[in-house]
Parts: sequence; C-alpha cells; structure tokens
Amino acid sequence: MKGSATLLIIAPDQRGLVAAVADFLYDHGANILHADQHIDAAENLFFMRVEWDMTGFDLTADTFEEVFSDLAEKLRLSWRLEVSSRRPRVAIMVSQQDHCLADLLYRHRSGELQCDIPLIISNHDTCRALATFNDIPYFNTPIASDNKAAVEKQQLELLASHRIDTVVLARYMQILSGEFISHYPEQIINIHHSFLPAFTGARPYHRAFDRGVKLIGATSHYVTEALDDGPIIEQDVVRVSHRNQVSDLVEKGRDLERLVLSRALRWHIDHRVLTYGNKTVVFD
Amino acid sequence: MKGSATLLIIAPDQRGLVAAVADFLYDHGANILHADQHIDAAENLFFMRVEWDMTGFDLTADTFEEVFSDLAEKLRLSWRLEVSSRRPRVAIMVSQQDHCLADLLYRHRSGELQCDIPLIISNHDTCRALATFNDIPYFNTPIASDNKAAVEKQQLELLASHRIDTVVLARYMQILSGEFISHYPEQIINIHHSFLPAFTGARPYHRAFDRGVKLIGATSHYVTEALDDGPIIEQDVVRVSHRNQVSDLVEKGRDLERLVLSRALRWHIDHRVLTYGNKTVVFD
Amino acid sequence: MKGSATLLIIAPDQRGLVAAVADFLYDHGANILHADQHIDAAENLFFMRVEWDMTGFDLTADTFEEVFSDLAEKLRLSWRLEVSSRRPRVAIMVSQQDHCLADLLYRHRSGELQCDIPLIISNHDTCRALATFNDIPYFNTPIASDNKAAVEKQQLELLASHRIDTVVLARYMQILSGEFISHYPEQIINIHHSFLPAFTGARPYHRAFDRGVKLIGATSHYVTEALDDGPIIEQDVVRVSHRNQVSDLVEKGRDLERLVLSRALRWHIDHRVLTYGNKTVVFD
Amino acid sequence: MKGSATLLIIAPDQRGLVAAVADFLYDHGANILHADQHIDAAENLFFMRVEWDMTGFDLTADTFEEVFSDLAEKLRLSWRLEVSSRRPRVAIMVSQQDHCLADLLYRHRSGELQCDIPLIISNHDTCRALATFNDIPYFNTPIASDNKAAVEKQQLELLASHRIDTVVLARYMQILSGEFISHYPEQIINIHHSFLPAFTGARPYHRAFDRGVKLIGATSHYVTEALDDGPIIEQDVVRVSHRNQVSDLVEKGRDLERLVLSRALRWHIDHRVLTYGNKTVVFD
Repeated sequence: MKGSATLLIIAPDQRGLVAAVADFLYDHGANILHADQHIDAAENLFFMRVEWDMTGFDLTADTFEEVFSDLAEKLRLSWRLEVSSRRPRVAIMVSQQDHCLADLLYRHRSGELQCDIPLIISNHDTCRALATFNDIPYFNTPIASDNKAAVEKQQLELLASHRIDTVVLARYMQILSGEFISHYPEQIINIHHSFLPAFTGARPYHRAFDRGVKLIGATSHYVTEALDDGPIIEQDVVRVSHRNQVSDLVEKGRDLERLVLSRALRWHIDHRVLTYGNKTVVFD
Repeated sequence: MKGSATLLIIAPDQRGLVAAVADFLYDHGANILHADQHIDAAENLFFMRVEWDMTGFDLTADTFEEVFSDLAEKLRLSWRLEVSSRRPRVAIMVSQQDHCLADLLYRHRSGELQCDIPLIISNHDTCRALATFNDIPYFNTPIASDNKAAVEKQQLELLASHRIDTVVLARYMQILSGEFISHYPEQIINIHHSFLPAFTGARPYHRAFDRGVKLIGATSHYVTEALDDGPIIEQDVVRVSHRNQVSDLVEKGRDLERLVLSRALRWHIDHRVLTYGNKTVVFD
Repeated sequence: MKGSATLLIIAPDQRGLVAAVADFLYDHGANILHADQHIDAAENLFFMRVEWDMTGFDLTADTFEEVFSDLAEKLRLSWRLEVSSRRPRVAIMVSQQDHCLADLLYRHRSGELQCDIPLIISNHDTCRALATFNDIPYFNTPIASDNKAAVEKQQLELLASHRIDTVVLARYMQILSGEFISHYPEQIINIHHSFLPAFTGARPYHRAFDRGVKLIGATSHYVTEALDDGPIIEQDVVRVSHRNQVSDLVEKGRDLERLVLSRALRWHIDHRVLTYGNKTVVFD
Repeated sequence: MKGSATLLIIAPDQRGLVAAVADFLYDHGANILHADQHIDAAENLFFMRVEWDMTGFDLTADTFEEVFSDLAEKLRLSWRLEVSSRRPRVAIMVSQQDHCLADLLYRHRSGELQCDIPLIISNHDTCRALATFNDIPYFNTPIASDNKAAVEKQQLELLASHRIDTVVLARYMQILSGEFISHYPEQIINIHHSFLPAFTGARPYHRAFDRGVKLIGATSHYVTEALDDGPIIEQDVVRVSHRNQVSDLVEKGRDLERLVLSRALRWHIDHRVLTYGNKTVVFD
C-alpha cells in the first residue's frame, strides 16, 4: 500500500503504553516517520500521534481495525486511523467577506492544503466568481428571517451528498443551530475575529477599539453549541496603536484571520489535532 | 536652563493648532528635539507631544505657564509641561512575588528608568533584602482583615511624605480602595497577568489554562475604581502549548509581566502617555 | 479640490522648521489630518510628513509648487507633494511563483491598495490566468541567455508606455541591470526571502536551513545596483524548529513574503516612506 | 531512587528503535513522564528524549549503563543518561555589562534554573556586589595584552576545581582560545547580540543601525572555534524603527539578550538540547 498512515490515540495513562503501540507497529513492519506523545499528568491522560510509511506495512486501512482492536481494548485506547490515500473532504461556508475564502482557495490550489474542496456554500452570491475561478461548485442558500431551519436542512443535504468530513466557516456570519452542529462534532472550524475569550459575539473589532487594547487577535476553534466557546485550535495577535481606527483594525485583522484559520485547517486535515474536554492537543 | 522640556497637549481639533504652538515655541527660542501629533477624527480631538532643548529657550518651567496661558486659553488646550530636571518620584508597591520589583530595580540601577524611587511599600517582609541591596527604604505595612482602611491611610501618608508622583503596583495583591485611587488619578500603574479584557480578576493563569488558550498575555494599565478596567498602556503575549501546565504559564508570564510593566512605566515617566476617555495615546 | 494632499520633506534640521511649514499650510487653509516629524540628531536631518484635507485649501497640486518654492528654497527643503486624486501606477513583475502576486492582486481588488495596476510583466506564462481573472493585462517577456538586454529594453518600453511610477518585484527571479534600475530610483520594490543582511543572494531558505537558524525572515527593500543591499522598508520573521525541512521553510516563508511585501508596497503608495543614505524613515 | 531520569539518544534511523527503547524502559519499570522523538529523514538520523519517574525503576544511574549497553551497541545508539538528583554545575563568565548576569542570578534564586552556580568569573571587578548579594564566589581574572594564555589557564583551573559542567558567557567580551573551548565541547553557551548569521563579530548593534534593519536580534549558541558560528540554540528579535538610535538598540537588545540566553541555558540544563553537525534539536 502506498502513502502514509497516522494513528491518533487518547488513553488513560499507564506504564507500557508507548512500548505496546511501538511493538505492534514494529511487528507489522511500520517504518515510523513521525511520533509524538503527550501526557497530561493532572488528567492522567496519554496522547499519541504516530505516522508511518505504508510501504512494507502488512496491514491495510481496512484490516488494521480488526488486528489492532484487541490491544486497543486492553489498553482502553480511544483511537482513529487516518490514511493519506484518503483525502479529507472539506466544505467552506462563507457570507460576503471573502478574504479567508480567497486565502484558503489559493492555498488549496498551490498544494498547501492536502484536502478536497467539493463545494462552497454561501448565503450570498458575492463570492461566486472566486469559486468559479477555482473550479469549485458554489451553492447560494439565501437566509431570511423565516427560513433558517429549512436552509440548514438544505445545507446539511448538500454536505451529506458531497460526503463532507469537515466544514470551515470562513467568515460565515450566521449562527448554526445545535442540530446542525451535532452532525459534525469536532469537524466544524470557525474563525472568530478576536482573541478569545475576550470579545465573544458580535462586532469584536469595534469593542476592542472601544476598550483601547494594544493588540488585536483572531481565534480558530471547533464549533460547539456554546457560542465562541469551543476548543481553541490556534490564536494569534497583531499590534495596534492609537493611530488605528476601527477600519484599520478590520484590515489588520484580515491578515490575522487568514493566517490563523489556514493554520487551524492545515493542522486539522494533517490529523495533528486531538480534543479533550474543551481543549486541544496540537502536535507540531 | 539645562536639559529638555516636554509639552503635552489635548485640545478640540481646529485649524492652526500646530502652527500656533510651533510659532510660540520658535518665538521663545526652542530647539525642537521630538514632536508628535495625533488627531482622533471621530472624537475631534488633537493630541501633541513636543520636546525641546532648554538651552537657548527664554522661558523657565516657572515662567512658562504665565506666558503660555493666553494661547492655551484661546485654543482651549489641556496641557502640562514636564522638565527633565525634575525627575518623577515613583513608589513601588509589592506583595510577595518579587520578579517585577527585581526587574524595575535593576532597570533603575542601570539608568534605564529616569526617575527617583524613594520607597518601596509592601504588605510582607519578603522583598526587604532586595530593597536593601538597592539602597531603597522599605516599609512593611501588613494587612489584616480588619485594618485595611488604617493601612491605606498609613500608606498614603508614606507616599505624601515622600512626595510621590506615581505609584507602581508591581504584583501588589491587594485591591486599593476608591479613596486611595482618588489621590493618584492616572498615576497608579498596575500589571495584570492576563490579556485584558480577558480574565479580569483573580487567578488569570489558571483560567487561561482551563480555557485552553494558545497565547497568554499581560496588561499594564492605569488603575481606576473599576477593577482591571482602566486605560491600557501596554500589552503583550507569549505562545503556550498543550505541553504547558499552569506552573509553566506562571513562569512564562513572569517574563511578560516584567517587560510589559517596565515598558509602561518607562513611557509614563518619559511623559509619552496621554489618556482620554478610557484609552491612552502612547507617543513613541 | 477634493481628496487629501501629502507633503514630504527632508531638510537640514534648524529652528523654526515646523513652525514655518505649519504656518504656510494654515495660511492657505489646510485642515491637517496627520502630521509626523522625525529628527535624526546624528545626521542633523529633519523629516516631515503632513497630510491635509484639500477642501478649503486655496492651492492646487499645480499651483502649490510655485507658491511653496520660496519657503522651500529658504529652508533648503527637499520636498514633494502627493495628492490622493492621482493614484500611483504600479507594475508587478513576477516569474513562476505566484503567492505574492496573488496576494497583491487580492488586496488591490479589495481596495486595500490604493493604486492602479495597469500591467503585469513576467518571464513565464504561468501567472496569466491569475492576471486575466483580475482583468489586468499580462505581458510575457521570456528571457534567454542571449537576449537579456533586449528584453529589459522591451520591459522598459512597456513600463513607460503604461506611465508606471513604481515597479514591484513579486518574486521576479531575474537580476535587473543597473541601467534598468536607473530609470526607477527608489521606485523598485523587491521582496527577498531572508532576514537581510543574512543570506543575500540565491537560495536563502536552503542556507538558513543549513545554518540551523531558529527564525526565518523576509525583507522588502528598494532595489539598488548592489544586490539585496538597498534601503530596507520592512522585515519580519517567523519561528522554525528542527522539525522543519527546507520545504517547510519555503512554505512558512511564503506567508512572510506576502505580508512583508504587501506592507512595504502599502506604505510606499501611501507616501509614508522617505529614504536617506541607505535607510528609510517609515511614518506610521 | 527519587526524582526523574532523562535518556537522550541519537542513532541511525531504523525500524523498531522506539519499540526497543520503550520495551527496555517498560521492562525495568519506568513510568514515562515525557517522550519526544525526531527523525531527520535527509540525514537518516533518529533523535529521542525520554524522561521517566525513577520511583519503581529497577536500575540506578550507576547500573543503567551496564544493563543498557548491549541494546545501545546493537542499535548503534549515541546516548547519555541524566538524572535530576545530579544538578548541572554552571559557571558564569561576564565582563562589565551585567544585565544577563543579573537576570540569570535572579532566575537561579527564584528556582527557575535547576542548576548549581558555584562561581562567577570576570575580567573586571564590576559585578562583584551582585555576586555577593547572591552568595556566589566571584573571581576576578584581569586580562592584559600579554597574559591571556596564563589567565585562561587560571580560569580553567577554577572551572576544574569547581567541577563545572557548563560555562555561560553572559556578555563575556573576550574571545576564548580553541584550547579553552576544547575542554568544554558543547558545554559553553554564548549570547551574541545579533540575529546570526548577520553581524557576526564586533559591534553588531552599530552595524545593524548602519544597515537600517527593522528588527534586531539576539542569538544563543554553543561556542566552537569558528567565531559566532556554533550550533544555534535560540534566537529572537524585536522591532526597531527610524526613531531608534544605537543607544536604543542597545537598550532594546538587553531585554532580548536576557530572554534568549536564559531560555538557551534553561533548555540546556533541562537536557532538552541535542547537537548534530552544526545544528541543534531542542525538544520542547
């Protein structure tokens, strides 16, 4: 089999975990490319990410589960296997501001993002030309005050029919229902234009300006039912000064949002992110 | 007269402000070293900081007010004059954690902070040796549940008798009363160990850890009656990861706190900070 | 007259400069929007940038020179006037790597870059689709070992016929001749993919990797005859680790290059950059 | 046995390395606290750092070598074992500028640096009071044009008699001879006040100022015979502007130097740094 495989593990910490997993992989002929572990002593949790070359490995993505399950059960491992031959399928949702969308599409086109992007969903027609230029189907699902549930149903059908794994909210300005979110647990990635937990909710740049902060931030996180409160994947900040008006903050923030969202998506599709409680482990 | 003078102005914006002030200074023989302006168009406010060499200037700190007051009144200027020959007198208040104190004393000793530090006030005896090494009088004013008002009265007397201009709370872990604060408006500088407005109040590193943030911050601000809500002078952040426990955040945060507080104090005593509303203009 | 005007001044420092210029502008009805000065005491040089609203100003771009010249001569000012109604005309030159080009075109489209981009010149056909999507004429001037001088002549004719003010080398991988450069003094902006002066010349990421640096950089500078040695407008860095191979440095570097080049161009077309000796003053 | 042990390994990469080491540790009862690996595919090298609790481990620091040597030989491991019960012994060498020294002594006093500091060596008497305040013996070995070799001999004897493991050059302004360096391979840590490889050698801040850079840096590296060319452990930068004179660069640089040197030393004494070729792997 070609390409590489990545095994992600969360387990109660115990002696011999690394040895057991490493032995298993060695016995089956794995040539390890990267391995990383983390132990959260306070929570007594063990995290592992190991990536190996599938050449010479005597199991396939299909047979791995059966053979590995005994060990996994004995060690009480929560685990999943990802193979590079199966590229994640990512949908992008966007409203009218296209800076994150344009950035993600550029990175996708240049090969930086190893995923498929089968469709873009918007509640406006604004970004259609950009989608067309990138040869990606674009679905406009306009939202009115009385059709939100129906639109979400239509969007979920689009996502399902395109077999989407991950949904990126690239400045999608609608709040998703709990029902919608429940279909994609830890698979919806949002970019919020503040340094969370400061300035949750609407108009964060205006509120940052009013508070007179000296740095503004952006935060990419998994979407949960609690608004802007999901596990944080990545954050960054940029310096502002008294010379900057709200419009300057918005503009500086665009660069931040692009970088932070693209890093978060990159790590997600490279299977570097593990969540536990309301936190993430991001293996570098 | 030797040294330099710095004029700080806030005024309603109007045509001819720069010309009028520049003419005044030129007419009296000022050789301008630095000049900076800022216009907040939304608030229609004009800010100016101009520093000049006193050699050849035909007014003194004492005669300036009388001569300048006509112009100031006509243009409705809020202004103050600071002369380098009069060094700000700064008191440091500290509890048991001495990292900011040690840093400020080092910077003072090395000539980086152009101020006098006539005394250190603490509610513990922990930092006495450090004060002694730096030849600065140290006053321990222990606080119990029932003597807070009396202690504050004693502290205010110490500050007054030492003719203190500015009070630095270098990890002083007591909340000052509104009465105390009212004696030093925009002259009490605090360091808060979070990226405000996130994590106001107690134990910010613990709460940052619990929230799973990817950056931690520190904020230096003027103290007002609203806790951790005064005008922000400086903020900075440092990256943390899932590998960092609360104790690591505390340790990384110490470096941040030192840098952020020392910058804020430096700018304050260099007369670079103007406040308006709940914000600061920091001229660089 | 509509819009704003920006006056940029370099002069030998002397008493009364600010007053003289401010008086002149006030006398002609200028409503100052921004003003910034800088004094380089070691070089005895004075720098000024002042921007004002043309509404109510009694001179035009055309009449300003005549009226201002007396004062300018008396004070020995080097100066230029820029009016917002005349947008800078910028040509982009690019080879095969399109990340900076795509970024600049996006920023132009979104209104962040207040300039015209009348043409793109390349020595390859790679970026034509991107140019077409952005409705910008694209000229492919292929370079062979024996036609370099002829191609430069052709390129200079293209620039002249499009009345270009500023040339941006957005990863243009050919070294321009001194003859070419002499046509656009302080008007050709390059992005070099290292933290200059480290790693001038070819393959800087490879050499940074070999040296084992912990940060990589990018530098945007004006092009002079000395390779990678012109006045620096902007630089920035990003952290790398032992986990990063050359390909990771290249990828991380792309984000840096985009940000650094776009900031430099932005400041240049906003008339914020003054050069003297081999340095720049960048007014913020 | 109490405390923890850290095993550091460099080896030719091969299948089964992680499994073999993990099995060995598990078989002897190790409870792993941290484990990190790195594979340099280009060099075909494997790096490992694993730290475990000695409680329940059935080998001691003394018996480990004998038992582990068979495996180590079979797998061609370069390795060393460090135990937390044996604190590294660090000498600090300094000239007249005391900012790094003061910072390291503060961090040592506060428990941040887990090492012993048995002595400070200087070629001046300037820092004696600081040493005395921290209860650390201070040796002044003045250097004249004709006694350099003799002084180095005296210094080496001081280091030997104090059983020093690691020497920190905390702004020690003398160039050490190859002979001196050969006694402490990969155990002498220097702080250079530039972003290496830019501005090697003398007066880097002056040269950075002359070049007009927009960021200045500091670099901590192991000392080798080639000046400022040893393996880099840590680097960082800070922004400067046209407003900053050389003296401002020096002052801003002091904060950088403190941070960069203290991080490098911290990682070194925590046994997080592995060197190969002219590079370092720094496990976080």
